[in-house]
Amino acid sequence: MSSLAHASSKNHTPSLASLQSLYQDRMELVNEKILASLECSVPLIQEIAGYLIRQGGKRLRPLLTLASADLCGYQGQDHIGLAAAVEFIHTATLLHDDVVDESELRRGVATANTVWDNTASVLVGDFLFSRAFQLMVEQGSLPILKVLSDASARIAEGEVMQLASARNINLSEDQYLEVISAKTACLFEAATHVGGLVANTSEAQVNAIKQFGFDLGVAFQLTDDALDYSSTKEALGKSIGDDFAEGKVTLPILFAYQAASAQDKAFIKKCFGELNQAEGDLERMIKILIQTGALSATLEKAQGYIQNAYKCLEDFPYSLRKLALQEVLDFVLARDH
Amino acid sequence: MSSLAHASSKNHTPSLASLQSLYQDRMELVNEKILASLECSVPLIQEIAGYLIRQGGKRLRPLLTLASADLCGYQGQDHIGLAAAVEFIHTATLLHDDVVDESELRRGVATANTVWDNTASVLVGDFLFSRAFQLMVEQGSLPILKVLSDASARIAEGEVMQLASARNINLSEDQYLEVISAKTACLFEAATHVGGLVANTSEAQVNAIKQFGFDLGVAFQLTDDALDYSSTKEALGKSIGDDFAEGKVTLPILFAYQAASAQDKAFIKKCFGELNQAEGDLERMIKILIQTGALSATLEKAQGYIQNAYKCLEDFPYSLRKLALQEVLDFVLARDH
Repeated sequence: MSSLAHASSKNHTPSLASLQSLYQDRMELVNEKILASLECSVPLIQEIAGYLIRQGGKRLRPLLTLASADLCGYQGQDHIGLAAAVEFIHTATLLHDDVVDESELRRGVATANTVWDNTASVLVGDFLFSRAFQLMVEQGSLPILKVLSDASARIAEGEVMQLASARNINLSEDQYLEVISAKTACLFEAATHVGGLVANTSEAQVNAIKQFGFDLGVAFQLTDDALDYSSTKEALGKSIGDDFAEGKVTLPILFAYQAASAQDKAFIKKCFGELNQAEGDLERMIKILIQTGALSATLEKAQGYIQNAYKCLEDFPYSLRKLALQEVLDFVLARDH
Repeated sequence: MSSLAHASSKNHTPSLASLQSLYQDRMELVNEKILASLECSVPLIQEIAGYLIRQGGKRLRPLLTLASADLCGYQGQDHIGLAAAVEFIHTATLLHDDVVDESELRRGVATANTVWDNTASVLVGDFLFSRAFQLMVEQGSLPILKVLSDASARIAEGEVMQLASARNINLSEDQYLEVISAKTACLFEAATHVGGLVANTSEAQVNAIKQFGFDLGVAFQLTDDALDYSSTKEALGKSIGDDFAEGKVTLPILFAYQAASAQDKAFIKKCFGELNQAEGDLERMIKILIQTGALSATLEKAQGYIQNAYKCLEDFPYSLRKLALQEVLDFVLARDH
């Protein structure tokens, strides 16, 4: 994979540090906007939403909005609110995802505590989603509102598709790519697309930065799906094998199933199709994934999307912001979390 | 209550029939728009959303958007899509409400079936909510987008407020009114407000029809809360006492608690504060509600809001559409479902 490593990452492990450092000031404005937008008369919302938003994570999507606008020559301040809106949509999606995933994990038994979490997750997610639209309305561009409302609908479609295809070991690669395009890549695409739109640049540049976001998003989800079997708990910040426990059929599993022996095929079918799992099964699955080359095949696939994303940046002039965006691409391939 | 009955309702039980008949053609366009907007590549979404939307209910909110636009002299077709958007927001809210309510009812035990329902409810709700925004973007008015995104955020706030005040028997009347203003009246207000806005009429007319929607909405929730104890299962189409079973403290309960004997106060506290309920408790609660006059006090309160709503219509000229909207007010007070 190091063959893809570019100038920016030759001498160090690629990370998001360059991007974060380049946009530190503006990300502080985004954070202020986020906190100001959480102000509301209901203490419980402020508490829960504030906690979630403060936990933060990588803030990759709003960073991409800022960087895309900047790369397209934007000089104004409207991208601050839009970056906050993108982060709100992302957080709302995560909250509702939790409800969906938890309900699968629970397998029919809920504690009072997870019930309260579910309830709060649904409603606070709705609140954040509405706030996202309020921020977009405040900015006042209908084309941008269109991009983000289209993306929101498509994310919901992707989530339902994923649900409908859960435990389906006969999913095709195309169907899987359709699911992750909708549930993940779509918001990356929207994040960079609105950056281009707010900059009011040429159609060619807008399309290039939009496609960059999409390809990055697909690669991000592919490496995510591989990491769920190949990372360590410490690096990932959550247990590995979550997808396995939920019976979520991802590309590594599809690749492994195709290449597996009859005996291993039956094992995979039992684990995913029937969600019948015993101790040691995750370890056996990981062994099959390595033996069949399914993990490296998944990462190779991701590499293809990263290469496309590189091409999207070709026509933008050499600059620190371009280097930082290229390093994001290297990071997505090289990351262990 | 019959003192409030006006010309339109003197000789028959007030209903929504006049309004429905007046806007039958346009409601068919709204239904077509709704069905067309449900088109998507995910069969499961079309199935679930289509089923929910077809079940329909009264369609009161989109009817109010149509009637408000008409009352304000609107001649165009933009209100069709907006009425569909209002219905989508309403349906999305109901779906997410179900998750919240179910999780309370279940008290920690979920069947696989309710889990699937929850999951689908969350995601299909998100899809409908996004579709609502897509419809508004299509219509292209930022002031209208502002009204409906503000309303959506406020509805979520109201739901969380309700959750936070569940089982709180010491809720004040003002706090209760704040909750129902946000969770219910707000969308009625938005439904009529966008009708006025799309008609591009005078500020005075827009404000009048907006206030009409709000007052109607508060009255609607008040009678709803009374009906949960006074209707019959047949009329309501669902079991009575749902609020009781969930420990949802509504105005009838607050009024009863204030006027109850020490013994009955302890009983109410046990049923709501501790959610400790035995067979026969609902019947005893209904008896207390009648003895203390709490149900009639609640309906009297509703009557006050209906009177205000009547006043909002005063300056609109005498017409069939005005009569139909007045009959809606009578219906809200007189309804048994």
